[in-house]
Amino acid sequence: MRILVLGGDGYCGWPTALHLSNRGNEIAVVDNFVRRSWDHELGAQTLTPIRPLTDRLRIWHRLMGKEIESFVGDILDYEFLAGVMKEFAPEAVVHFAEQRSAPYSMIDRQHAVFTQMNNVVGTLNVLFAIKEFQPDCHLVKLGTMGEYGTPNIDIEEGYIRIQHNGREDVLPFPKQPGSFYHLSKVHDSHNVHFCCKIWGIRATDLNQGVVYGTVTDETALDEALVNRFDYDEVFGTALNRFCVQAAIEHPLTIYGEGGQTRGFLDIRDTVRCIELACQNPAARGEFRVFNQFTEQFSVLELAQMVHTAGQRLGLRVVVDHLPDPRVEAEQHYYNAKHTKLAQLGLKPHLLSESLVDSLVNIAMQHRDRVDPALLMPRVNWRNSRNDRRSKREVAIAAD
Amino acid sequence: MRILVLGGDGYCGWPTALHLSNRGNEIAVVDNFVRRSWDHELGAQTLTPIRPLTDRLRIWHRLMGKEIESFVGDILDYEFLAGVMKEFAPEAVVHFAEQRSAPYSMIDRQHAVFTQMNNVVGTLNVLFAIKEFQPDCHLVKLGTMGEYGTPNIDIEEGYIRIQHNGREDVLPFPKQPGSFYHLSKVHDSHNVHFCCKIWGIRATDLNQGVVYGTVTDETALDEALVNRFDYDEVFGTALNRFCVQAAIEHPLTIYGEGGQTRGFLDIRDTVRCIELACQNPAARGEFRVFNQFTEQFSVLELAQMVHTAGQRLGLRVVVDHLPDPRVEAEQHYYNAKHTKLAQLGLKPHLLSESLVDSLVNIAMQHRDRVDPALLMPRVNWRNSRNDRRSKREVAIAAD
Repeated sequence: MRILVLGGDGYCGWPTALHLSNRGNEIAVVDNFVRRSWDHELGAQTLTPIRPLTDRLRIWHRLMGKEIESFVGDILDYEFLAGVMKEFAPEAVVHFAEQRSAPYSMIDRQHAVFTQMNNVVGTLNVLFAIKEFQPDCHLVKLGTMGEYGTPNIDIEEGYIRIQHNGREDVLPFPKQPGSFYHLSKVHDSHNVHFCCKIWGIRATDLNQGVVYGTVTDETALDEALVNRFDYDEVFGTALNRFCVQAAIEHPLTIYGEGGQTRGFLDIRDTVRCIELACQNPAARGEFRVFNQFTEQFSVLELAQMVHTAGQRLGLRVVVDHLPDPRVEAEQHYYNAKHTKLAQLGLKPHLLSESLVDSLVNIAMQHRDRVDPALLMPRVNWRNSRNDRRSKREVAIAAD
Repeated sequence: MRILVLGGDGYCGWPTALHLSNRGNEIAVVDNFVRRSWDHELGAQTLTPIRPLTDRLRIWHRLMGKEIESFVGDILDYEFLAGVMKEFAPEAVVHFAEQRSAPYSMIDRQHAVFTQMNNVVGTLNVLFAIKEFQPDCHLVKLGTMGEYGTPNIDIEEGYIRIQHNGREDVLPFPKQPGSFYHLSKVHDSHNVHFCCKIWGIRATDLNQGVVYGTVTDETALDEALVNRFDYDEVFGTALNRFCVQAAIEHPLTIYGEGGQTRGFLDIRDTVRCIELACQNPAARGEFRVFNQFTEQFSVLELAQMVHTAGQRLGLRVVVDHLPDPRVEAEQHYYNAKHTKLAQLGLKPHLLSESLVDSLVNIAMQHRDRVDPALLMPRVNWRNSRNDRRSKREVAIAAD
């Protein structure tokens, strides 16, 4: 299958491109390297030293004999995107090319506006390009479990049957997103749903949980294929950040009580879920929603697992509770369904002691690259700035 | 009360500014005149010859002794908006400053992207400006009944209590908007709701029905205060367009079967609803939703009323059914609640024979300004273009 991976240089996009290539698909990636530039903006870097995309692709080709084509550009540039669609003519488009950090979207007005513009307009362009050049192409769009928020009822996969005043209908599940980033994904979901309806586009919206891990079968093949591993407060996801904190014996920073419960999954399951979605496309006009995670944990539970792993590895790890910089419930009901990808054949990699140990080990291996200043929360939901501030001001504000 | 009316030169904004001024409030308007430029783009004009804003405001001052301040600029320019908020320091902001036409948003990719960017970013700017400069200010935001679509259950005002698997919660009412424009309002609603939650902003989202009429008590005071009356297929709302078609003995253009049922209201009720919302502000942190319409009609029912009025006035009026250029249900259940504004004191102007007669009379009075070519649908939901086309091309495509 010819699959175009938008955002193919990123944390999820890169291992997905390799996995799909390894499984015999013809892959092209699109990226504008803006994710790498955000590291410069924030003074951060991935824990694992990643290589430039050209190197990565050359090594992959040398190792596996498989060519992955790359197109460098911004999907907000419709002329560029149209050219790629015409030239590569994909049967599926996997869309990771969005700003994906909640804290980044909450820094200030400019970052909020950038996130929503970038994500919403990028997705609109993808929809128009599919309609114009590849109307039968299947859009596999990354959403987030954070679109749902934490309602006091079970979370279904995209839709819910509602009985009301003696009538009933199946309607989109109500959304209560918790950041300008999460909001952008809700906007996307509504836009994609509408285009499926009016143009007969086939789309799968993957409401992904919080991803952990860095290694997949393919990235493990060579040091030059190593994937990102973000640990900073802006782009680092919870478990990854805790593992890095343990590795340098920094307190594990739980926001508030830590009762915040979310869906999680291993990056190896991310790449498999994308493959399953591509292999089983939505019908023409169908807007299909899968909840893409394998297990639920509270933040406190994750911290305790890392705490225990640290003790096993001889590290002095303490758990610290910080005032929650986000506006969210710190204790709440949470029960989200996630059966559709399992029905398609997903065999989850569940979070085990040995996996947590291996993540802490990776962090220990690269501990000299850790900047502890990046671990503490500086972005506060209640005080998003209206004006840009310099990194130095941010640092002072956090003191 | 100091009230800032964003979009104060437009169809709803202008009579609202006058009404609020007349009732003793201190009013300033913001406008960038982009609505007037869309007339140039589309080769259209309001049926009623409107005057430049400066003239309108001068006459209002001369007649009533009341000064309405005007700020000319684009709310997408945050520096401009911030300056207005600081200088005028409003207690309420009434936000009409959005692209409000569904067909306009469906012309092509550029118009879709423009509509969503303009509306979403404009509203984000308003939210940040309120937070920064006037945190206690009440945002009165115009939404649309079109956000809900046509679910098979009763439409509530913003929220719905859902029982599910033995638990329950009150959640945002699921949205099924039917154009890129309606989608932009759904995005806005989610963004405003979130900012109420995190920053304690007070907001009222007015999900307005389709507005008809042009005359209010204030615009009737002088010919120079006359309000817009749009009849073209892009900006003309259904009843106004039918009245113009009757006046020139053009067939009334019903899209499809005409069973499409919506909420409608008189422009005199629009201005009163805004006043009621301002007089009864939402609490800090509250995101309040009112459904702002007074009666439900199907498009066919409206056409029949205009048909009858035309006969009374001696006009030869026929009703024509065109293939529906939109993707929508032509027959469906529709029962939307609208009690909250009535509870605050709204006394509706219901649609009567005499009112329809007066609308047709206004249209007859200005029939020499009607361009029949603007009445027929040219924008098709199924074929939104990817590239801009010239007006000439649009005209050819419609033939």
